[in-house]
Amino acid sequence: MMDAFTISSVLNRIPIFENLKPDLLYVLSRGSREIVVDKGERLFQKGDPAQGFYFVLDGRVKLAFISSRGTEKVVEIIHRHQSFGESVVLADSVWPYYSQALLDSRLLHISSTAFHEVVSSDRNAADLLLGSMARRLCSMFADMEAFCLLTSRERVVGYLLREIEQKRQLGDSDLSVDLPDTKANTASLLNLTPETFSRVIHALEREQAISVSRRMVTVLDLEKLQRGSGC
Amino acid sequence: MMDAFTISSVLNRIPIFENLKPDLLYVLSRGSREIVVDKGERLFQKGDPAQGFYFVLDGRVKLAFISSRGTEKVVEIIHRHQSFGESVVLADSVWPYYSQALLDSRLLHISSTAFHEVVSSDRNAADLLLGSMARRLCSMFADMEAFCLLTSRERVVGYLLREIEQKRQLGDSDLSVDLPDTKANTASLLNLTPETFSRVIHALEREQAISVSRRMVTVLDLEKLQRGSGC
Repeated sequence: MMDAFTISSVLNRIPIFENLKPDLLYVLSRGSREIVVDKGERLFQKGDPAQGFYFVLDGRVKLAFISSRGTEKVVEIIHRHQSFGESVVLADSVWPYYSQALLDSRLLHISSTAFHEVVSSDRNAADLLLGSMARRLCSMFADMEAFCLLTSRERVVGYLLREIEQKRQLGDSDLSVDLPDTKANTASLLNLTPETFSRVIHALEREQAISVSRRMVTVLDLEKLQRGSGC
Repeated sequence: MMDAFTISSVLNRIPIFENLKPDLLYVLSRGSREIVVDKGERLFQKGDPAQGFYFVLDGRVKLAFISSRGTEKVVEIIHRHQSFGESVVLADSVWPYYSQALLDSRLLHISSTAFHEVVSSDRNAADLLLGSMARRLCSMFADMEAFCLLTSRERVVGYLLREIEQKRQLGDSDLSVDLPDTKANTASLLNLTPETFSRVIHALEREQAISVSRRMVTVLDLEKLQRGSGC
């Protein structure tokens, strides 16, 4: 298990806690614990009270809903060094989705109590959190638009373009996208059936806009791809 | 037009600005102006830069997307004394939807500059804003679940139950819901066609779970309605 020093240095790497004063970092690390989950294991069920939020140290987890008829919708796939659940904790709410490990994973659980204490004591953390929640809300409007109005082709192309743009912002100008998981999960993330997702990918391959090798999609012609996005 | 004193007293009624210090209330009122729009007029287009957020003094406005094929999806209907756009302003983003007046309306436009200044100077306002954005994010997860997974019947019943619960929280135990606008807008809010929305309403009437008179829906049997919601 991680010692207090290691936990502190991890917490310091979470963007909203950068430049946190040592006493508050101590509060936060005292309220944090490491959690190990096997692939396929659930972290929590929809409706469980949120007693803290999570930071992925290693591995990958999925946030999803299941309808009363058993259909699943993936809300988000959380990668290494990403966090999730801050807003649910701040709203003192129950989990609006369930969470399941897609790989063997290690996470840091940061307790609600410690989180509330830090956010109410540290002006900088509160400001960074406000900015990050505001951006998240704006991106959820875009998700909602995609679910309700975009064609399956527009959703797939939009997804590929967003992934490439994110890499570009991190200084990587490579035009390839590593599809995160199983085809079913990627499709569900875009609210498509796996069959529709495959159909669109194959059509884009035939048009020579992309090439696909296993789970790696490489964009061959960005303009051709963008023309198909309806943007 | 409203004078500075009236604007200040209105701003004071916006929950996140309660107990604002007089000097910050002055900053905010100097950055605010009244806007009058006729029914059907647009306040802004999707993609316009957000230069401030809005508080509805009188009337009603709709936030919506339109797809490249002309299909519309209503995101939210904003009533008198409700505000919208705070997160877009905080994220320094462009409008992710367009806004149109559903009735002749009067609004207060609060400039980004003044809003940023107040949020960065007033701890209480920042905390209230954090709480309100966190709750909004959680309710958007519920919206997303509804769009992706619920049947048309579950969406209509869920909508009626939420409206009744909101009234109850305001101390009104009446079991009637005044549908906000045209049938098309209410249906679009639930991501249904007007025809499907009508079909579900008529089915619930036939089962004597509700009665409908013009735009007023009265719940006759709450248990019967809840049984149909899949909750």
